[in-house]
Amino acid sequence: MSWMFERLRLSVFGESHGKAIGAVIEGLPAGEAVDLEAIKCCMERRKGKSAAVSTTRGESDEVEILSGLYRGKTTGTPLALQIVNRTQRSEDYDLTVFRPSHADYTAQIRYGGNADMRGGGHFSGRLTAPLVAAGAIAKQILGRRAIEVEAFVSSVGAVKGLTYESVSDPTEIAARRTEVVGALDDESAMLAVIRAAREQGDSVGGTVDCVAAGLPAGYGDPLWYGVESRLAAMLFGIPAVKGVEFGRGFGLAEMRGSEANDPFALREGRVVTTSNRSGGINGGITNGMPLTFRTAFRPTPTIFVPQKTVTAEGRETEYSVKGRHDGCIVPRAAVVVECAAALILLDLAERYR
Amino acid sequence: MSWMFERLRLSVFGESHGKAIGAVIEGLPAGEAVDLEAIKCCMERRKGKSAAVSTTRGESDEVEILSGLYRGKTTGTPLALQIVNRTQRSEDYDLTVFRPSHADYTAQIRYGGNADMRGGGHFSGRLTAPLVAAGAIAKQILGRRAIEVEAFVSSVGAVKGLTYESVSDPTEIAARRTEVVGALDDESAMLAVIRAAREQGDSVGGTVDCVAAGLPAGYGDPLWYGVESRLAAMLFGIPAVKGVEFGRGFGLAEMRGSEANDPFALREGRVVTTSNRSGGINGGITNGMPLTFRTAFRPTPTIFVPQKTVTAEGRETEYSVKGRHDGCIVPRAAVVVECAAALILLDLAERYR
Amino acid sequence: MSWMFERLRLSVFGESHGKAIGAVIEGLPAGEAVDLEAIKCCMERRKGKSAAVSTTRGESDEVEILSGLYRGKTTGTPLALQIVNRTQRSEDYDLTVFRPSHADYTAQIRYGGNADMRGGGHFSGRLTAPLVAAGAIAKQILGRRAIEVEAFVSSVGAVKGLTYESVSDPTEIAARRTEVVGALDDESAMLAVIRAAREQGDSVGGTVDCVAAGLPAGYGDPLWYGVESRLAAMLFGIPAVKGVEFGRGFGLAEMRGSEANDPFALREGRVVTTSNRSGGINGGITNGMPLTFRTAFRPTPTIFVPQKTVTAEGRETEYSVKGRHDGCIVPRAAVVVECAAALILLDLAERYR
Amino acid sequence: MSWMFERLRLSVFGESHGKAIGAVIEGLPAGEAVDLEAIKCCMERRKGKSAAVSTTRGESDEVEILSGLYRGKTTGTPLALQIVNRTQRSEDYDLTVFRPSHADYTAQIRYGGNADMRGGGHFSGRLTAPLVAAGAIAKQILGRRAIEVEAFVSSVGAVKGLTYESVSDPTEIAARRTEVVGALDDESAMLAVIRAAREQGDSVGGTVDCVAAGLPAGYGDPLWYGVESRLAAMLFGIPAVKGVEFGRGFGLAEMRGSEANDPFALREGRVVTTSNRSGGINGGITNGMPLTFRTAFRPTPTIFVPQKTVTAEGRETEYSVKGRHDGCIVPRAAVVVECAAALILLDLAERYR
Repeated sequence: MSWMFERLRLSVFGESHGKAIGAVIEGLPAGEAVDLEAIKCCMERRKGKSAAVSTTRGESDEVEILSGLYRGKTTGTPLALQIVNRTQRSEDYDLTVFRPSHADYTAQIRYGGNADMRGGGHFSGRLTAPLVAAGAIAKQILGRRAIEVEAFVSSVGAVKGLTYESVSDPTEIAARRTEVVGALDDESAMLAVIRAAREQGDSVGGTVDCVAAGLPAGYGDPLWYGVESRLAAMLFGIPAVKGVEFGRGFGLAEMRGSEANDPFALREGRVVTTSNRSGGINGGITNGMPLTFRTAFRPTPTIFVPQKTVTAEGRETEYSVKGRHDGCIVPRAAVVVECAAALILLDLAERYR
Repeated sequence: MSWMFERLRLSVFGESHGKAIGAVIEGLPAGEAVDLEAIKCCMERRKGKSAAVSTTRGESDEVEILSGLYRGKTTGTPLALQIVNRTQRSEDYDLTVFRPSHADYTAQIRYGGNADMRGGGHFSGRLTAPLVAAGAIAKQILGRRAIEVEAFVSSVGAVKGLTYESVSDPTEIAARRTEVVGALDDESAMLAVIRAAREQGDSVGGTVDCVAAGLPAGYGDPLWYGVESRLAAMLFGIPAVKGVEFGRGFGLAEMRGSEANDPFALREGRVVTTSNRSGGINGGITNGMPLTFRTAFRPTPTIFVPQKTVTAEGRETEYSVKGRHDGCIVPRAAVVVECAAALILLDLAERYR
Repeated sequence: MSWMFERLRLSVFGESHGKAIGAVIEGLPAGEAVDLEAIKCCMERRKGKSAAVSTTRGESDEVEILSGLYRGKTTGTPLALQIVNRTQRSEDYDLTVFRPSHADYTAQIRYGGNADMRGGGHFSGRLTAPLVAAGAIAKQILGRRAIEVEAFVSSVGAVKGLTYESVSDPTEIAARRTEVVGALDDESAMLAVIRAAREQGDSVGGTVDCVAAGLPAGYGDPLWYGVESRLAAMLFGIPAVKGVEFGRGFGLAEMRGSEANDPFALREGRVVTTSNRSGGINGGITNGMPLTFRTAFRPTPTIFVPQKTVTAEGRETEYSVKGRHDGCIVPRAAVVVECAAALILLDLAERYR
Repeated sequence: MSWMFERLRLSVFGESHGKAIGAVIEGLPAGEAVDLEAIKCCMERRKGKSAAVSTTRGESDEVEILSGLYRGKTTGTPLALQIVNRTQRSEDYDLTVFRPSHADYTAQIRYGGNADMRGGGHFSGRLTAPLVAAGAIAKQILGRRAIEVEAFVSSVGAVKGLTYESVSDPTEIAARRTEVVGALDDESAMLAVIRAAREQGDSVGGTVDCVAAGLPAGYGDPLWYGVESRLAAMLFGIPAVKGVEFGRGFGLAEMRGSEANDPFALREGRVVTTSNRSGGINGGITNGMPLTFRTAFRPTPTIFVPQKTVTAEGRETEYSVKGRHDGCIVPRAAVVVECAAALILLDLAERYR
């Protein structure tokens, strides 16, 4: 699953309740030190930090590197990593109802009923774990080239927080990210929204903002090899993402050209723009300003509220979920966006250096 | 430039003032009749219908098919088409200033000053002409399989029109699209916004909504081969697109799960959803409901208002554009979105049939 | 590493002395039963059957499927498999001399000395184990569609055995393959050549013939999507392969057209050719006759004979290998060719059905 | 049709009697001067030099560059080139018999009778004209980086000439290539074989040897990104190629390791091998020695000798070709091999620099 890359290739495998999930990354540069603690740190961010926000299933999420690493450094040949599912359910599972807005129905049609859909199977948010592990390696390599990428929660439901329009320095973002939600500034209103949804057996969506700084001007190509196309293809591959915008994005559609254009200026002999409504990209190519983009996450479709649906046998019914459930996946999704983006940025950095 | 396809491959070539622009499409099914009048009709929509909206450069935009067509039908081998640039400027062109939010600066860095940037070169909106020609062929083939795709203008600047949330039947869209702007319903307010911008030497952005109906359930794959990833990669390759959303898109981020989920029901024995906030896609796979998505177009950066910028020699300056200019490209962009989407949909239809 | 496929994608990872080697196969059809015994049988053929021919390192080569298999059938989502290296050497390894015709020197340059070259690392013939496991699955699926593929040893050193020119029925090949060498008919002369080489601390090369029957006419495309291009790209990826030919191959270069052409005829209403010098392919497309091709394997470069070479520090030296060594890898390579080919054939069968 | 590249992408279009044939090359480096005379020179070599060898159809084969070239240099954006077919036959063509060992039958099945098969259509050797034009550009760029690639005829029928085993310096090859056949040394015996075949209405095959020098060590990757896989995929895409071998190729299969291994040595501080039986590649990666490979061309299947075959309506028949015919395409094929290889080598040079 690596069509949006030019130099890397990524294969993510596994099911929510299978033996193991994992990833193979081909095309990594050789000789790059891999800091396992830094990977672990990203994995912890993905797990989420509070029972108020998410119910983890008690996985240790230990990342085991099977190949491509020698004496602590990348070898240049494929790096395979796996995460053993410790709480896999061994019992069989029979799909009885198509849960609304889940992939139960579409997977049924696509795979003729053969997919392992226990816990969401290959469609589960659990598949973002190997993605984060792979991206955490990319982030380290980028960091050594002074390319930083950081994401944060910019809204939960109707509660808007700070966005990359006001904070676009990755270092500052990393420093200011709040403990539980991962927003900038105050997170109390967002937390309240999440708690209220959970208490009512409901869920709530939100947005994740991402900023990458340190990319030189001149990465990318016009038309379909543009940086926006590559990043969007990656970001829409994250489960629950339903919108992506760059710079002022949909806001640009409401502007006039005189408001939207970013004037060029010189700062210490370097060409810069004095605003960054284009999100660091002109004509598909980086212009040296921070890359800024936002992704919209739908509320997780797993809710305890009774819902109308159809059974696998083709009968209308009403059903209610029982069991574990995330009130809001957005706090856990920020690091996923960040790591997904890091893989594309490393690909660009390798391709255009 | 064909990485987002599995079965088709598309190569778009040319510069705004070069000899010709064109496209090569590989992987088209054999034996499909090609209606040259239908291609012409799409080309006319792209040219735009009124001086109030756009100043065309007087190109006939005649599409010449060089290969892959025999006795009026596709052969199954590569179809090449070209559009000769009749008003090409033969004189040389020296880049003197980096026009704000154009690709002048990024192309300079990327191609070391070798790109032919006359009239925007390979970055020009003119390159959407061969894309439309290629997509118009895809649209015809899809039509024969009862897959219809239609796009329309849903907003211009701050003026909102009808969206796919109220009209999601492609046939109705085609019938209701207004003459000049290509909106649904009344276009007078949108026209007024465009005229006002033009009169002030300014431009204005907008959004294009697109609906595809007739796709069976079960097209696509989870994660990075999802339909959203493929379409987004294509759509962000269209010059000036800065945002893409599916279904309720960014609106979903503000909802609760109980508001966002689409209940399943049975209609004449067929599984449907009674709402379509997911835009016809669950887990990256089509669910049989209409595919709905929206693209945000920035205002064209070519404006007559004086702007601060930097010269190619590295000096700050103020400059004003002279010459031809589109007040709003959005009315011309709808058919581009439609044809771009048609290529992805044909690829899906070929891949999953 | 999957560029020669249209529908499948294959990622092979691991090093000879790393934790595990394995493969991820994407794009397998859903609902296909996987017979683990049949995989094991191919793995045993790869291990080789006699101390006269090869010294195995005592690996059990147990194939563990981590994902993509549910209730004994493929799910349609990525199938990951791993083989744990039980005899991995934990100690570090310092490259001291560039062994002639091994990849020591080229890997040193390519990966800047970071590759894990213990036991040949990612370049080792050991990497064919996951390839065989993956191909064994493909073979099963093909078998259900009446597509059979079998390979055998057609020569060892200067000793020529039967070739596909005399036996081109896969079922007959499987039945007649000799126990140790895997040739057709008598293997004693080949065995003698291998033994003689081993006794002198030397090695010997050979050829592997492969036949696939049951492919319908009409698979493939002209020029660079031709069946020969796809298969050759796969086959030259097998370590030690230095030549590939289809049908009469290099022999055709010596013929006249009147000798080389395969006349068409009708047999029970079906178009056939009365000879098969083209190896079942015309213009890159299958013609319904058995696919026949041959691969040349160089002698393994690991020999005990003293050789001149250069040290990693850049000094000329003479060196002798000690330790384990295969006198001839060709008997073990036949199943590798067969399984590699099966992956390409399954890709074709999925692509063109 | 560009799957064997990492940086370039190549699309070759057209039919033998369509309006035009051509190619689009994406990913060329920017700022490279394009010498149209050098392209013409390669086109002339492809046309062939003597009526004794080939009957050209009187095409001027003028290469027109439509895009991607500005002020005599590559722009870095897609370069499109076309060759107008001046002697195209406008009349319709009805396939009546399946000519033996042509693609008539396989194309019929593959494309359901829709392919334009006039003069061989997209399967025609004429499609090598745009390949040569594209490769001639690649050759120029490589030349500036001191990478030279030259091909020559090493055998015609049973007549063997010099091979790369005796001459492996591209400059010397270019200087020694004979006028009509393009062999090294004396061509009279080869010419006699070709003349004899022609006089009897027959054709004859042969082999083309190719040498590339100047490639640094360290280009390529193990397994399926190896240089042999990439080159073989390209070479088998050339019509009539049925075998490819690298270095001593099939000859290696007959050797012992002690005969086959290339000892390393130092020459002026540089690591070299004192023989080059591996053809410049170890483990899929260039070792800095000349790349040597050979391709086997079958005799052209167009012969005047009566042949048994089947009609499109499904009746057995005997038929004889009338009209134009090449006695031996090998002399014209050498430049095709050379240009095809140059495209892969440029891709490597861009990818690994």
